[in-house]
Parts: sequence; structure tokens; C-alpha cells
Amino acid sequence: MTEAFDAVDLIVAKRDRRELTTAEIDWLVDAFTRGYVADEQMSAWAMAVLLNGMTRSEIRDLTLAMIASGERMNFDRLSKRTADKHSTGGVGDKITLPLAPLVAAFGVAVPQLSGRGLGHTGGTLDKLESIPGWRADVAPDAMLAQLEDVGAVICAAGAGLAPADKRLYALRDTTGTVEAIPLIASSIMSKKIAEGTSALVLDVKFGEGAFMKDLDRARELARTMVDLGRDAGVATSALLTDMSIPLGLTIGNALEVREAVEVLAGGGPADVVELTVELARAMVASVGMADADPAAALADGRAMDVWRRMISAQGGDPDAPLPTGRETHVVTADASGILTEQHALPFGIAAWRLGAGRARQQDPVSAGAGIELHAKPGDAVTEGQPLFTLHTDEESRLPRALEALEGAWSIGDTAPAARPLIADRIS
Amino acid sequence: MTEAFDAVDLIVAKRDRRELTTAEIDWLVDAFTRGYVADEQMSAWAMAVLLNGMTRSEIRDLTLAMIASGERMNFDRLSKRTADKHSTGGVGDKITLPLAPLVAAFGVAVPQLSGRGLGHTGGTLDKLESIPGWRADVAPDAMLAQLEDVGAVICAAGAGLAPADKRLYALRDTTGTVEAIPLIASSIMSKKIAEGTSALVLDVKFGEGAFMKDLDRARELARTMVDLGRDAGVATSALLTDMSIPLGLTIGNALEVREAVEVLAGGGPADVVELTVELARAMVASVGMADADPAAALADGRAMDVWRRMISAQGGDPDAPLPTGRETHVVTADASGILTEQHALPFGIAAWRLGAGRARQQDPVSAGAGIELHAKPGDAVTEGQPLFTLHTDEESRLPRALEALEGAWSIGDTAPAARPLIADRIS
Repeated sequence: MTEAFDAVDLIVAKRDRRELTTAEIDWLVDAFTRGYVADEQMSAWAMAVLLNGMTRSEIRDLTLAMIASGERMNFDRLSKRTADKHSTGGVGDKITLPLAPLVAAFGVAVPQLSGRGLGHTGGTLDKLESIPGWRADVAPDAMLAQLEDVGAVICAAGAGLAPADKRLYALRDTTGTVEAIPLIASSIMSKKIAEGTSALVLDVKFGEGAFMKDLDRARELARTMVDLGRDAGVATSALLTDMSIPLGLTIGNALEVREAVEVLAGGGPADVVELTVELARAMVASVGMADADPAAALADGRAMDVWRRMISAQGGDPDAPLPTGRETHVVTADASGILTEQHALPFGIAAWRLGAGRARQQDPVSAGAGIELHAKPGDAVTEGQPLFTLHTDEESRLPRALEALEGAWSIGDTAPAARPLIADRIS
Repeated sequence: MTEAFDAVDLIVAKRDRRELTTAEIDWLVDAFTRGYVADEQMSAWAMAVLLNGMTRSEIRDLTLAMIASGERMNFDRLSKRTADKHSTGGVGDKITLPLAPLVAAFGVAVPQLSGRGLGHTGGTLDKLESIPGWRADVAPDAMLAQLEDVGAVICAAGAGLAPADKRLYALRDTTGTVEAIPLIASSIMSKKIAEGTSALVLDVKFGEGAFMKDLDRARELARTMVDLGRDAGVATSALLTDMSIPLGLTIGNALEVREAVEVLAGGGPADVVELTVELARAMVASVGMADADPAAALADGRAMDVWRRMISAQGGDPDAPLPTGRETHVVTADASGILTEQHALPFGIAAWRLGAGRARQQDPVSAGAGIELHAKPGDAVTEGQPLFTLHTDEESRLPRALEALEGAWSIGDTAPAARPLIADRIS
């Protein structure tokens, strides 16, 4: 850091729509990380960014400065190419579970550093921790060995990656500045680029169960992240996928693992299979294997073999029975007809209230809690048939979960218009 | 406080251009004053206000909430009507000094709570403190007695008025959010309304020596403050006055007192006399005396009588010689012609550097330091004649003051277009 700037000048610059230089952004991120720029200054700056935007080169500079604030992983010693996937999060999104072993089955290294859930979207680590014995913490050397040997690792990200992003994210969370696309994009991409992957496929979700409610905003975020990845030398592409209804038939940790295993066994719900296969195709294509056939690797058990070895390598027993909730409650159809609506957000909130998610970072989650869907929009239903089953460890959680579900589905006469799961691709 | 809100919701509301309710603003100001809303939240909110604006009723609610955060003065016990004046600050602005006694000469009570200077604009209390013996601190009872007896008081504002504004102002100063018109207006007006006056005349300055550089922004600020005063039951009007050249012929504490006394003696520079008389006319009109003749009260010594009694009542000796700087430096014309330019800002900065102003709240000021102008734009000058004289206590301060003045004036062939001192009136 050779040059020093004044924090107020840099806030005023974004406020007045002046583009910041690389040196200015480097200084700001470094000074904020060290505590020389105060929280109240950085939050005012973030609000100016949210309302006035950032240019492509500012976003790139911000991302690189956040990467530079911490450690950077390096997979150069591996004999394989690496490919990574990131989802912006949704209800019932267990795709990472079948996807990582599926892509690894093609000889690609998949280092999937994941997080825990907060609010109505679940966390991949929470899901895998429902497998008896499975450990999320993998030391760097063990990670490299597992990638070389098994091909896939799903584990916790170390605290040393992009600490500036962690600090800024915590600040944005309490200051109404989460929704800024330049800040979302640089937050996600700083961690992904610091993780050292050479190729990245993004699953950017839109719809009421996603962070981005509408397709245009999701597309802007996807475009921003794809540009950012390329500017940083990472082959990046994105799928824009619909999150207005839950993905698959399960929401909740062990329930979602069960569904992932069904997919790996060649079965599972059509939407989960479709998205898993499409993301796998994009990932293997990004490392030069455009002709690979992921659907075949699900059907013939190659992906399942990798899954079993991946779970075992991290202490888990792939054959152990999964935990179940102590209480269940079945909701049935009050009329015959066609299921016309099934809103992702209330189902996500209900699963959270049943114990599948957490409200604060330090809260525990229940492995068995969640929701099992017995019908999807477009399905014919008969009065009295089960529509979905709630699972929980505590019966007292049922009333608030049912409250969240009021108006969350409906039965009518005409089938809803079919919505494609994958709305767009950016590459 | 019966209702509680969430700070993030209120930040997001302003970010997304939703109007806040009275209850929401009351809660926000109270919670911020008590420390329940963090600085980083309030600064993000202030940036959203700066970029998205506030409605008239939001500005009124904010002002009333800041007033409610502290004490409120009350002049109901006086037998006289009260009128107050506020200037947004400029270079050489000593108008309060002759104005307060002039208006009091008409039987109006003028409680002029003033501040000290910071940066290139001087403070009224700093100026008066150059009078030997004069004290800025007046207890509330003594203030009432002096208003009843003498009619005018110029004194320090107590710390108990609008503490929320003090806290918010300090935060805005370090977060690039000073320039928001709703926040400037509510900051000024919360203090003025808390001071309990029934009528208020605002001198809103524009031009390079003022806080507001252009007339349109100054007019918007004036309009906002006039609306705010009326919504709070204070008869408020505003003059928009030019601050592109220094006001009068002196800049600096004792130098400005000397000029004020010249005006009270029926003399003084034409611009200072004009503005003093116009503001006095507006103030006496605001309490129902539209026919009063302030110019006559300057000419016949009535205003000077009140001045002498006002200074004496606060321990000052109106006949004592004023302090002078130990060193002087005369700058002469390098050509003959017409003085075409005399920029307010560099003259203000030079006077500050000579010792007349302070950089930090706790710094002392020099009573004798400043600048005496010997010519104004439009005046014919002869090569070698004195243009201005610098006064300081420390010769070492001269070089940096002269540096500030480089390019600050020019001599040419054609007289500059005359600019009216009073550009507009809002009432």
C-alpha cells in the first residue's frame, strides 16, 4: 500500500457517480479490513454503490482486492482439471450432492467448498452432516489427496479466504445493502476465485423462493459474475433456473440426502435429475469434455461409486440409515382437481420452522426435520390424498409451520402453464 | 415510544423510495440517540436520503423528532415578540452583529444563539469574543432578563438543544452525507425551532464562498426550510444572497467587529448595510411591523444604543480598543485598471490560515488576524496601490495565506457585470 486516500473522498466519489481507480479500491478494501475505514463509512459507501452501481472494472477491482485480503488456494499440483459450481440458493436445492460425484466420475476434480444454511435456504454442509460420521472439516493436504484419489470433496471453506468479504457481508446484512448486484457478485466470486478453481458454473436462481425475485435481475447478476470470472481467468458460465416452486420432492437435511441418493441410483424427481445433468454437462464442457454424457454416468452407477467413496473418505457411512423426525403430520387435499400452485417461499419457511434451518449462525439444525411433497404442480389429486408430510422432532413446531403454509398451494380445474426449469444460459 | 421498528426495514424503505411514517421516524431518531440504531445503520440511511430525497412530511417529522430529543426554550414569559435570523455562513459575514441590536431597537426580542467557526467560515461568537470582557455564556434566566431589558442577546447555544442533530451531524461529517438538503434543512431548523422563536428570517447564501455553490440548490434549501418553519408554526422567510465575493471589507474577528460598529454608527460598506437593513426589514415585518424603517434606526443611533447595552450586559466594554494582529502585510496592485475578480473562498481560506479560524473544534482563534480589503470588484485601481492587508500574530503564517490567494483576484480593462447581492426572496 504505497498511496493513501481519504475515506470520505471515496464515499463522495461513488455518491456522485465517479468511477474509482484500482488504487482507490485497493486502499479502501485494505483499510476497511484493517479497521482504518470505519463501519459507518463503509456502509454509506455500500449504499451509494447499491443506488448508483459500479462499472465492470470497479467490480473486478473490488473482487481482486477482496481476494488479496486473504489466502488463495492452489490446485496446480493436481493431475486433474478442476471445476466448481455455485448456486445462489433455493428451496430444496440439493443439487451439489449428486453433482459433485457425477462430475468427478469424468476425471474432473470438484473441490466444493460449501456453507451452512441461514433462514429459509438450506446449507449443503447441514445436509451432509445428517449422514452418520460425516465430517465437514478437511485439512488442505487431505483435500488435495481426496481430489486426486476420489475426485470430489464437499467441505467447509476455511476462514482465511477473502476475510474482507466476510467483514463487508456482515456489515451489509445489518445496513440494508445486501441487494446490490455489484456487491453480491464480488462477494460470491471473490470466494470462488480464491478457492482456485479453473472453471466455474453458476446456478443463478430467480423466483419467489430465490434471493433474486425476477429473471431480469437474476440475469444481470449472472452476466456480472460471468464477466467477473472471465476477467479473473476462470472459465465461467451460468444457468438461470426457476425457483418459484421447490426443487424436487424434499426440503430438509436428511430428506434431501435421501433424494440425492435416489438420483445417484438412477431415479429421483425429474427436475432434480434435469438440473443435475445440465450443470454437470456445463462443468465437464468447461474443462474441455463437451461430449461427456452425465445422464449415462447416473444410470450406470459410476456417479454412485464416487459418492460412496466421497462420503467414506470424510468419515461417513453411506449405508447407515438416515435420521428421521420423531413426529410427522400429513396434509391432504381438500378437493379433487389439479395441483395448480406450490409456492417455494412458504414451503422453505415451513421447513425452517420445523427445525431444518436456523435463524442465527450458532443455532443447531435438526437432521430429520423438513417436508416431503407427494405431488407437484400439474399433478392430478383426489380429495383426501396426502399432499405433503411435515417431519419434525418437536410437535410444538407444527402450528407455526402450518401457519407459514396457509395459501401456499391450491387445487383448481386447469393445469398451470408449464414453466421451463432452465430459463436461460449465459456463457 | 410504544411501537418498535427494525432499523434495516427503515433503511430499505428509504433505499426503495418508500415514505416513512411519523412513528417510524420518531422511533429511528430516538433509537439512534439512545444507541439502539448503530452508526453504520444511520449512515447507510443518510446516504439513501441523500440520493433518494425525503418528502415534505418526512422532513417535518425528522425535524420534530430531533427537537423532541432535547430541551426546548420558551419565550412566552416575555412581553415582546421574538424574531431570529440564521445565515448558512459565508466569508466576511458579520451581519448578526449590527442586525440583532437594530431589530431590538424596534421593540422586538432577538435571542440569537450562535456558534463558533470551523474551516473558512467564521463564527459569530469568535467575533464578539474579540471585545475585551465579553462573555458568550448566558444562563437562561439572564437571557430572558436581557431580552426584556435590552432586547438583544447573542450567546452560545446550550448543549441540550436537539442532541440527536449533534450526533447525526457528526456522523454525516465523516460519511459523505453532509450535502443532503433534507438533512441540512432539518439540522438547521431543529435547532432554530427548539430555540423557541416565533419568527425566523433565513439568509441562504450561494456562490463559491458558500456551502451551496449554485443558486438553484440554495433556493431548494431555502424553500425546504421555509416550508419546515411554517409546518412547525414559526413565521419563516428567506433571502438568497450572493457569496461569490467577500461580504464587506473585512474578514477576521476583531476586524469584522470594527466594521459592524461602523455600520451601527451609520457608515460601513454598502453591501453590509444593504443586507443588514433588508434582513432587519424582514424580521420586523415577520412580527407585524411592515412599516418600520431600519435604515433610519442605523442613521439616528438607536441601533448603536442597543449594541452598547447588549455588549455591556454580557461583560464587554464597547469603548475598549479592539485587538490587532502583531504583523501586517500589504498586497498592492501590479497594474492599473479595474478590479474584476475577488473570489470569496480563497480570501476565506487565507484569513483562516492567518489565524482567524480553526481547523478543529478545540483550537483557539486569533482575535486580530484577518484580511482588510481596500478595493471591491468594479473599483478602479492604480498600479502600486494597496489592494488588501493581511493581519496576523505570527509572521510564519503569511506564506501559506498568500499561497491560498494566488489567482484570487484580477485586474482588467472592463468592469464586471454588477451582481445583485439579494438574488431572490422566499416568503
